[in-house]
Amino acid sequence: TRRGVPEAILADVKTPGETATLAAAAVDSTGHAILTRASQAHVDAVAAELDAEVELERDERARTLVAHAPDFEPPVLDATVGIVTGGTSDAEAAGEAAVIVREMGASLTRVEDVGVAHLGRVLDHLDDLRAADVLVVAAGREGALPTVVAGLVDTPVVGLPVSTGYGHGGEGDAALSGMLQSCTVISTVNIDAGFVAGAQAGLVARAVSDAREAGSGDGPESDSN
Amino acid sequence: TRRGVPEAILADVKTPGETATLAAAAVDSTGHAILTRASQAHVDAVAAELDAEVELERDERARTLVAHAPDFEPPVLDATVGIVTGGTSDAEAAGEAAVIVREMGASLTRVEDVGVAHLGRVLDHLDDLRAADVLVVAAGREGALPTVVAGLVDTPVVGLPVSTGYGHGGEGDAALSGMLQSCTVISTVNIDAGFVAGAQAGLVARAVSDAREAGSGDGPESDSN
Amino acid sequence: TRRGVPEAILADVKTPGETATLAAAAVDSTGHAILTRASQAHVDAVAAELDAEVELERDERARTLVAHAPDFEPPVLDATVGIVTGGTSDAEAAGEAAVIVREMGASLTRVEDVGVAHLGRVLDHLDDLRAADVLVVAAGREGALPTVVAGLVDTPVVGLPVSTGYGHGGEGDAALSGMLQSCTVISTVNIDAGFVAGAQAGLVARAVSDAREAGSGDGPESDSN
Amino acid sequence: TRRGVPEAILADVKTPGETATLAAAAVDSTGHAILTRASQAHVDAVAAELDAEVELERDERARTLVAHAPDFEPPVLDATVGIVTGGTSDAEAAGEAAVIVREMGASLTRVEDVGVAHLGRVLDHLDDLRAADVLVVAAGREGALPTVVAGLVDTPVVGLPVSTGYGHGGEGDAALSGMLQSCTVISTVNIDAGFVAGAQAGLVARAVSDAREAGSGDGPESDSN
Amino acid sequence: TRRGVPEAILADVKTPGETATLAAAAVDSTGHAILTRASQAHVDAVAAELDAEVELERDERARTLVAHAPDFEPPVLDATVGIVTGGTSDAEAAGEAAVIVREMGASLTRVEDVGVAHLGRVLDHLDDLRAADVLVVAAGREGALPTVVAGLVDTPVVGLPVSTGYGHGGEGDAALSGMLQSCTVISTVNIDAGFVAGAQAGLVARAVSDAREAGSGDGPESDSN
Amino acid sequence: TRRGVPEAILADVKTPGETATLAAAAVDSTGHAILTRASQAHVDAVAAELDAEVELERDERARTLVAHAPDFEPPVLDATVGIVTGGTSDAEAAGEAAVIVREMGASLTRVEDVGVAHLGRVLDHLDDLRAADVLVVAAGREGALPTVVAGLVDTPVVGLPVSTGYGHGGEGDAALSGMLQSCTVISTVNIDAGFVAGAQAGLVARAVSDAREAGSGDGPESDSN
Amino acid sequence: TRRGVPEAILADVKTPGETATLAAAAVDSTGHAILTRASQAHVDAVAAELDAEVELERDERARTLVAHAPDFEPPVLDATVGIVTGGTSDAEAAGEAAVIVREMGASLTRVEDVGVAHLGRVLDHLDDLRAADVLVVAAGREGALPTVVAGLVDTPVVGLPVSTGYGHGGEGDAALSGMLQSCTVISTVNIDAGFVAGAQAGLVARAVSDAREAGSGDGPESDSN
Amino acid sequence: TRRGVPEAILADVKTPGETATLAAAAVDSTGHAILTRASQAHVDAVAAELDAEVELERDERARTLVAHAPDFEPPVLDATVGIVTGGTSDAEAAGEAAVIVREMGASLTRVEDVGVAHLGRVLDHLDDLRAADVLVVAAGREGALPTVVAGLVDTPVVGLPVSTGYGHGGEGDAALSGMLQSCTVISTVNIDAGFVAGAQAGLVARAVSDAREAGSGDGPESDSN
Ligand SMILES: Nc1ncnc2c1ncn2[C@@H]1O[C@H](COP(=O)(O)O)[C@@H](O)[C@H]1O
Ligand SMILES: Nc1ncnc2c1ncn2[C@@H]1O[C@H](COP(=O)(O)O)[C@@H](O)[C@H]1O
Ligand SMILES: Nc1ncnc2c1ncn2[C@@H]1O[C@H](COP(=O)(O)O)[C@@H](O)[C@H]1O
Ligand SMILES: Nc1ncnc2c1ncn2[C@@H]1O[C@H](COP(=O)(O)O)[C@@H](O)[C@H]1O
Ligand SMILES: [Mg+2]
Ligand SMILES: [Mg+2]
Ligand SMILES: [Mg+2]
Ligand SMILES: [Mg+2]
Ligand SMILES: [Mg+2]
Ligand SMILES: [Mg+2]
Ligand SMILES: [Mg+2]
Ligand SMILES: [Mg+2]
Repeated sequence: TRRGVPEAILADVKTPGETATLAAAAVDSTGHAILTRASQAHVDAVAAELDAEVELERDERARTLVAHAPDFEPPVLDATVGIVTGGTSDAEAAGEAAVIVREMGASLTRVEDVGVAHLGRVLDHLDDLRAADVLVVAAGREGALPTVVAGLVDTPVVGLPVSTGYGHGGEGDAALSGMLQSCTVISTVNIDAGFVAGAQAGLVARAVSDAREAGSGDGPESDSN
Repeated sequence: TRRGVPEAILADVKTPGETATLAAAAVDSTGHAILTRASQAHVDAVAAELDAEVELERDERARTLVAHAPDFEPPVLDATVGIVTGGTSDAEAAGEAAVIVREMGASLTRVEDVGVAHLGRVLDHLDDLRAADVLVVAAGREGALPTVVAGLVDTPVVGLPVSTGYGHGGEGDAALSGMLQSCTVISTVNIDAGFVAGAQAGLVARAVSDAREAGSGDGPESDSN
Repeated sequence: TRRGVPEAILADVKTPGETATLAAAAVDSTGHAILTRASQAHVDAVAAELDAEVELERDERARTLVAHAPDFEPPVLDATVGIVTGGTSDAEAAGEAAVIVREMGASLTRVEDVGVAHLGRVLDHLDDLRAADVLVVAAGREGALPTVVAGLVDTPVVGLPVSTGYGHGGEGDAALSGMLQSCTVISTVNIDAGFVAGAQAGLVARAVSDAREAGSGDGPESDSN
Repeated sequence: TRRGVPEAILADVKTPGETATLAAAAVDSTGHAILTRASQAHVDAVAAELDAEVELERDERARTLVAHAPDFEPPVLDATVGIVTGGTSDAEAAGEAAVIVREMGASLTRVEDVGVAHLGRVLDHLDDLRAADVLVVAAGREGALPTVVAGLVDTPVVGLPVSTGYGHGGEGDAALSGMLQSCTVISTVNIDAGFVAGAQAGLVARAVSDAREAGSGDGPESDSN
Repeated sequence: TRRGVPEAILADVKTPGETATLAAAAVDSTGHAILTRASQAHVDAVAAELDAEVELERDERARTLVAHAPDFEPPVLDATVGIVTGGTSDAEAAGEAAVIVREMGASLTRVEDVGVAHLGRVLDHLDDLRAADVLVVAAGREGALPTVVAGLVDTPVVGLPVSTGYGHGGEGDAALSGMLQSCTVISTVNIDAGFVAGAQAGLVARAVSDAREAGSGDGPESDSN
Repeated sequence: TRRGVPEAILADVKTPGETATLAAAAVDSTGHAILTRASQAHVDAVAAELDAEVELERDERARTLVAHAPDFEPPVLDATVGIVTGGTSDAEAAGEAAVIVREMGASLTRVEDVGVAHLGRVLDHLDDLRAADVLVVAAGREGALPTVVAGLVDTPVVGLPVSTGYGHGGEGDAALSGMLQSCTVISTVNIDAGFVAGAQAGLVARAVSDAREAGSGDGPESDSN
Repeated sequence: TRRGVPEAILADVKTPGETATLAAAAVDSTGHAILTRASQAHVDAVAAELDAEVELERDERARTLVAHAPDFEPPVLDATVGIVTGGTSDAEAAGEAAVIVREMGASLTRVEDVGVAHLGRVLDHLDDLRAADVLVVAAGREGALPTVVAGLVDTPVVGLPVSTGYGHGGEGDAALSGMLQSCTVISTVNIDAGFVAGAQAGLVARAVSDAREAGSGDGPESDSN
Repeated sequence: TRRGVPEAILADVKTPGETATLAAAAVDSTGHAILTRASQAHVDAVAAELDAEVELERDERARTLVAHAPDFEPPVLDATVGIVTGGTSDAEAAGEAAVIVREMGASLTRVEDVGVAHLGRVLDHLDDLRAADVLVVAAGREGALPTVVAGLVDTPVVGLPVSTGYGHGGEGDAALSGMLQSCTVISTVNIDAGFVAGAQAGLVARAVSDAREAGSGDGPESDSN
C-alpha cells in the first residue's frame, strides 16, 4: 500500500461486479480491501465473491465495507486522531474518515454535535479535543467549526467540508470557502472527502507514532519549546 | 426622507461636482445630507458648495460626510444599536453603518476585534452584546462571527459581510455565503453594504422606540413571554 | 429555546425514524416541536411516536408539522408580521415563514399574488402592508417585489428569495442577487429559507412587543420623531 | 451599412491612430462614422484626420463621436423610440443608445430617474412611455425597471442592464439575470451594450416606419385587434 | 390580456388540479388559455375541467395546450414572424414560441435544421428569412446561428438560446453568452424561454401590423430611406 | 528543446533582469530564445545582456522577441500552417501564434478580418483556408469563427479564444465555451494562449512534414481514401 | 461525410424511433452510421429498422453502435493514434474516441490505467506512447495525465477531460481547467467529448497518412530536423 | 502565541503606520513579530518604530519581515519541513511558507523548479523529498505537482496553490481545484496562502518533534508497522 494508506475502491461509480473483482484482487495482494460509498448491492457482490474466511465489516452510516484476510495483521499506531462533527448531517463523511483512521491503526476519539451556534457544547469537550495528536473537523453549512476548534487546541487541524446546506453556497461550497478563508491555521480537503481527511490525519498520526517509537536519542526528559 | 432613512449619496461613482450639487439639494429639501465612499476631493467640493453655517462632520475611516443645516433637528430614538467587528479590516464598512445609525437617532454601542478564533474576546463582551435592541455584526474572511454572536443573544442580528480575504471565496464571497448558510437565525446584506446594514438596524430601532413611547395601554407590569 | 425561536427539525435530510425521535425529544424538553420540509412519511412517523394527547397541526402546502404538548402555553406577542408573495410558486417558502411567525406568537397578515408586473395589485393592499410592524416579502424569478414594497412602507422588510425560474439566474439566484443589490433598504435570507425569514421577523416582532409592553416610562403621549 | 445599422467603432480597445484611420474609411465609403467608448484622445485624433468640412458631434457623457460628410443625408423614420433610465449611473449606456437611435433616424423620447423604489415617478411619465413605438429601459443594481415599465405599456421593451452595483451580483450581473428572469415579456442585451439596445430598437422603429409608409392597401380605418 | 400577450400558465411547477382551475378561470375571463411545459396529466386534467364545447389544441413536441371558448375571436395581424432552428434539439423551445406567435395572430414561417457548420443550408433559405417582419432564431451548443442569420437580413432578430450541450458551457450557457457577445445586433431572452421569444416577436409583429393598417397618411408611394 | 517546441519565456510575470538572464541561458544551450508578452523594457534588458552578434527580431503587435545565435540553424518543415482572425482585436494572440509557427519552421498563411456576421469575407478566402495542412482560428466575443471555418475545410482546426468582449461571457469566456460546445470537430487552447495554439499547430505540421519526407515506401501514386 | 469525419448521432437526447430513422438515412446516403451515448433501447430500435445485411457493432462500455452497409468500404490510414487513460472511470469517453478513430481508418494503440500518482506505470509504456503519430489522453479528477505524457513524447497530444470527481472542481471542471492551464503544449476538447477528441486525432492521422502516401518527391532519405 | 504559530501581520491591507504600531506591540508582548506581504514602506516604518537593538530580517522575494527582541529565544524543533516548487513564479508564496517554518523552529529543505512536464527533475530530488517529515508543495497553473510528489513519498503533503496562469482556471483556480480533486492523499490551503501552508507544516513538525523528544517509553528498537 502507498504511504501506509489503504487503497480504497470508490464504489458508487462502479458496478457491483467490478467492485467485487477489485476487492478480491486487493485482498489477494495486500490482505485487506476498503470500499467507500458502497450500497448494499456492492456489499452483497463483494461478500459473494470473497472467500468465506475473509472477515467483513460494514458501516452502513459511513457506507463503507472493510475486508480482512484471515492472516492480515493490521497496523497499530501509538497516536490518536480526533474526529469532530457539527451535526448529524456530517455523520457520513466523518464516518468514512473514521474507518480509514482505524484501518491505518491510529486510536480514535469522536466528538459529536458541537455546533458554532452553541459554544457551550464545544467548550464541554475541550479535554477530548486537546488529547488528540491531530484533528479532523467536519462541518457543513457555513463550515466555521474547524476555525473555532483550531483556536482552542495546539495540534494540526484538517477541515472536512460537508455537502449540507441549500441555496447560495449550499452543497458544501460555503463550508469549503469558509475553511480556505479561515483566520486561523487549518488545511482542507474537498467537499465530502472523508477518505482523504481521514487518511491525511492518519499520515500525521503515523509520523507522530514513528517519532514516538524511535525517540530522539536523548529521552523524554528533554523539552524543545 | 423615505422610511426615516436618510438618502445617502454614494460618492465614489460620481464626480466631486455632481456630488456637491446633490448634497446642496438634499440640505435644502431635507435639512441634511450624507455622503458615503467619499474621497477628500468629494469632501472639499461639498464644503465649497454649501453655505458656511452648514455643519459638516467627516469620518475618514468610514469615508463618510454628514451635513446638517443650522435648523436641522436630528431624530432621537429610545433604542440602542450594537455594531460588532471581527478585526481592523472591518472598520470601514462598520463605520459606515455607525454613521447612518447615529443619523437615524439611535444610541450606539461598538464592540471591536472579537474574532471567532479567539472565543474569549467574544465572551468578554457579552453584557454589551445583550444590552442592545438590535445588532449589526461585520465580518470578513469566513464570516462566522454573526453566527457565533447570534447564538449568545436574544435580539435580531443583521450580518454585514466584508470584502477581505483573497483567493477562493475572497473579496467577501465566503463571508456572504457563510451568513446565508448560517445554522442560526440572522438576515444579511450585500458585501460591504454598511449603509444598508446600519439603516436596517435603524429601522428596527425606530420600530422598538416607537413601541416603547406608545406603550401598550396596560403598562410595563405585563409580561408577554 | 434559543432567542424565543423554536428549534426546527429540517426533515428532508433525515429519515422518518430519526425525525420522530428528535420530535419526541423536543416535545419532552420544550413542550413543542416543529418540522419543516416534511413529507407525509415524516408526519406519519412522528404521529406514531408521539403520545396521543399531543396536538398536531400539519400544513401540506408549507410542508410543516407543529406539535404541542397538552400543557404547552404558546407565547402571545403584541405585534404583527406581514407576509407578502408575488405568485403561487412562492407559497411553500412563505407558508414555512408563516408557521414560524405564528409559533413565535405574533399576529399575521398575508398579502398574496402581488407581482411587480401588475403594480395595481400591489397598490390595492397598501393599508395591509403599512399596518404590519415588520414584513417578509417572498419573490422568485427577478425578485423585485421586496424593493417595490419597501418603497411604500415605513417598517423593516426582510426579503425571501424563492427558487423559481429556469435558465440563467434561475433556481433563485437572480432573486437573491436582486435583493442584495436592492436600491432601497432591505435585508435578505438564503434562497427558500422561509424558516429564517419568518424567525427573523418574529425576533423583530418580539422586540417591538416587549417595548410596547414595557413602555418608556413617560407614556404614549410622547412622540420621538 | 448592414441592416441600416451604422457600423460603430468601439474605440476603447484601439489606439487613437487606428481609430482615426477606421473613421476616415467609414466616412469615405458610407458618408458617416460613429465612435463609441471614445476618450478625448480618440476624438482629437479623428478630428485631425478627417477633412475640415466633415461635421463632428461629440457627446461627452455617452462617450460617443458622430461624423457626417457634407453630402451625407441622414435617414428619417416615422417612428419613436423611448429611452428610460433608473438613475444617473445609467446615463452613459443610455446615452450611447440614444446616439444610435438618432443616427438611424427615429424620433427620441427620454424619461430619466424613474426608480422602482419610487413608483410615483414612474407613473408620472405614463403618457410618454405609452407614446413611443418601442422602448429601451436601462437599469443597474437589481434591474427591475424594464419589468415594471413593460407591465404598463403595449409596446416591445428592450432591457439594457448597466454595470452598477458592487458585491454579489454587482457589475450588472444581477440586472442581467433579473431581466432574463422577468415575469413579463422583454428581450435583453449584454451589460452596458447601449449600442446594441439602441440599434435593436432602431430596427423595430424602422420596421414600424416602413409599415406606416407602405400602408396595408385598405387604409387607416381598419382595426386588427 | 396584457399587451396583447396571452397569459400563459407554466404547468410544470403546478399540479394538474391547480393548472385546470387556472385554465378554467382564464377561459372564463379572457376566452382562451395557454399552458406551457404541460405533461399529458396536465392536459387530461384541463380537458376534464373545461366545458365540452371549449376547443383544445395540444402540441406534444412543444408541450403546449391552447384552449378557445366557442365565442373566442382570435386576433389577426398583418405581419409575419419567422422562426429558425439549428437542429432537432431546438424543436421544443421553438415550438413553444410558434404557438404563442400564432395565438397572437401573426403569420408564421419556419426554417429548420440550418446549422452554422453547414452554411449552404442557411443560404438556401435566404428568401424565407428575408420575407419575415421579425425573426426568432433558436440555437443550442455554441449558439452562433442568430449572429449568422442577422448578418443576412434587414429585420430585427431575437435570439433564443436552447439548453443543449454538455460539459463546460452546456445546458445553454455557451449559447446565451454567445448571443449576448454577438458581434452583430440581436437581442436575447433566457435559455429555453420560447414563450418570451415568441411573445416579444409577436409584440413587434403587432406594432408593424398596426402601422401597416393605420398607414402614414401619405400612402405607400413615400419612401423614408 | 522539448518536442521541437522552443522553450518560451513568459516575460510579463518576470522582471527585465530575470528575463535577460533566462534568455542568455537559452541562447547558450539551445542557440535561440523566445520571449512572449514582452514589454519594451524586457526587450532592452535582453538586448543589453546578449552578445552583439546574436540576431534579435521584435514583433511589437505580438509582443514577442526572438533571439538567434550566429550559428543557429532554424528548422525547415515541408508543411503549412494557416492562421485566421475575425478582427483586429485578435492580432496579438494570433501574432504570438505566428511567431512560434515560424520558429518551428513551418510555412505560414494568414487570413485576416473574416467575421461570422459577414460570411462573404470568409468565402472569399476558401482557397487559402484549404491549402494549409492545419489551421489556427482566433476569435473573440462569441467565438464562432473556428466552427464556421471547420465546416469548410478538410484539415484539423485549433480554436484560439481571445479575451475580447465585455459584460456576461466577456474576457474570452463566451469564445472558449463556444469552441468547446462547437457542433463540428475542433480542439481548443486557453484564452489568449497564442503560444500554445501556434505550437500545437507546429507539432501537427512537423508530423506531416516528417511523413512527407519519409514517404510510405510505395510513393505518391497510392491514394488512401 | 464532412472532413472524412463520420456524422455521429448523439442518441441520448433522441428517442429510439428518431435515432433509428436518422441511422437508416445515414446508411442509405453514406454507407455507414455511428451512434454515441446509445442505450440498449436505441440499439434495438436501430437493429429493427435497418436491413438484415447491414453489419452492426455494439460497444457497451463506450455506449456506441456502428452500422456498415454490405458494400461499405472503410477507409484505411497509414497512421497510428494512441489513446491513454488514467483509470477505469475514463473508459466510456476513451472508448467513444476509439470507435471514431477506428471508423476513420487509423491504427489504434491503447494504454490504460496509468495515473499521475504512480509514475512507474506511465514510464513502463514509453515505447507505446512514442510509437503513435498523435495521442488522445483522457483523465478525470485533476486531469494532469496529458501534461505528464506530453512531456515524454514528440507528437501532438489532445487532452480529453472526463467528468469524474465530486465536490469543488468535480464533474470534469478541474480536469478541463488543468488541461487549459497545462505548462506544456496540448490542445483540449470539452468534458467527456470522446467523439471530438477521437475525430480530431483522426484528422491529424489522416493528414499524416496522406503526407506519407504522397511523399515529398525527394524520398525518405531526406531529414528536415 | 496560539498553537506555537507566530501571529503574522498581513501588511498589504494596512498603512505603514498601523503596521509599525502592531509590530511594536507584538515584539513587546511575545518577543517577536512577523510581517507578510510587506512593501519597503512597511519595512521602513517598522524599522523606525522599533528599538535599535531589535534584530530585523527582511526577505524581499517573500515580502516578509521578521523582528526579534534581543532576549527572544527562538524555538528549535527536531523535525524537518521540505518546501517544493514547480517554477520561479511560485517563489513568493513558497518563500512566505519558508519564513514561518523557520520561525517555528523546524529545519528546512528546499527543492526548486521541478515541473510535472519534466519528470526527470522531480526524480533527481527523491532523496531530499523523502528525508523530510512533512512537505509543502507549491504549484501554479494546473497544480499537479503535489499529486506527483505525494505518489513518491511516505509523509504528509500540504498543497499550496499559486495564483499563476491566465484565462480559464487562471489566478490559481485550476491549481486549487486540481489539488482538491487529487487522486492521492493531500490536504490544501487557499491560493497563495504561504503563511497557512508553512504554519500547518510547522504544526505537524512540532507534533513530530514533541513525539521524538518524549519517546514512547520502549525506545527506538520497536517498530509499529
Ligand atoms: N471516498 C473517496 N474520496 C476520495 N478518494 C477516494 C475515495 N475512495 C477511494 N478513493 C481514491 O480514489 C482513487 C481512485 O479510485 P478508483 O476510481 O477506485 O481507482 C484511489 O486512489 C482511491 O484510493
Ligand atoms: N414557458 C414560459 N416561459 C416564461 N414565462 C412563462 C412561460 N409560461 C408562462 N409564463 C409566464 O410566467 C408568468 C408566471 O407564470 P405563473 O407561475 O403561471 O403565474 C406569467 O406571467 C406567464 O405569462
Ligand atoms: N504566452 C504563453 N502562453 C502559454 N505558455 C507560455 C507562454 N509563454 C511561455 N509559455 C510556457 O510556459 C511555461 C512556463 O514558463 P516560465 O514561467 O517562463 O517558466 C514554459 O514551458 C513556456 O514554454
Ligand atoms: N499572509 C497571510 N495569509 C493568511 N493569514 C495571514 C497572513 N498574514 C497574517 N495572517 C493572519 O491573518 C489574521 C488577521 O490578521 P490581521 O488583519 O493583521 O489582524 C491573523 O490571525 C494573522 O495571523
Ligand atoms: Mg456547520
Ligand atoms: Mg471574520
Ligand atoms: Mg417575482
Ligand atoms: Mg435599477
Ligand atoms: Mg447551435
Ligand atoms: Mg468573433
Ligand atoms: Mg486523472
Ligand atoms: Mg504547476
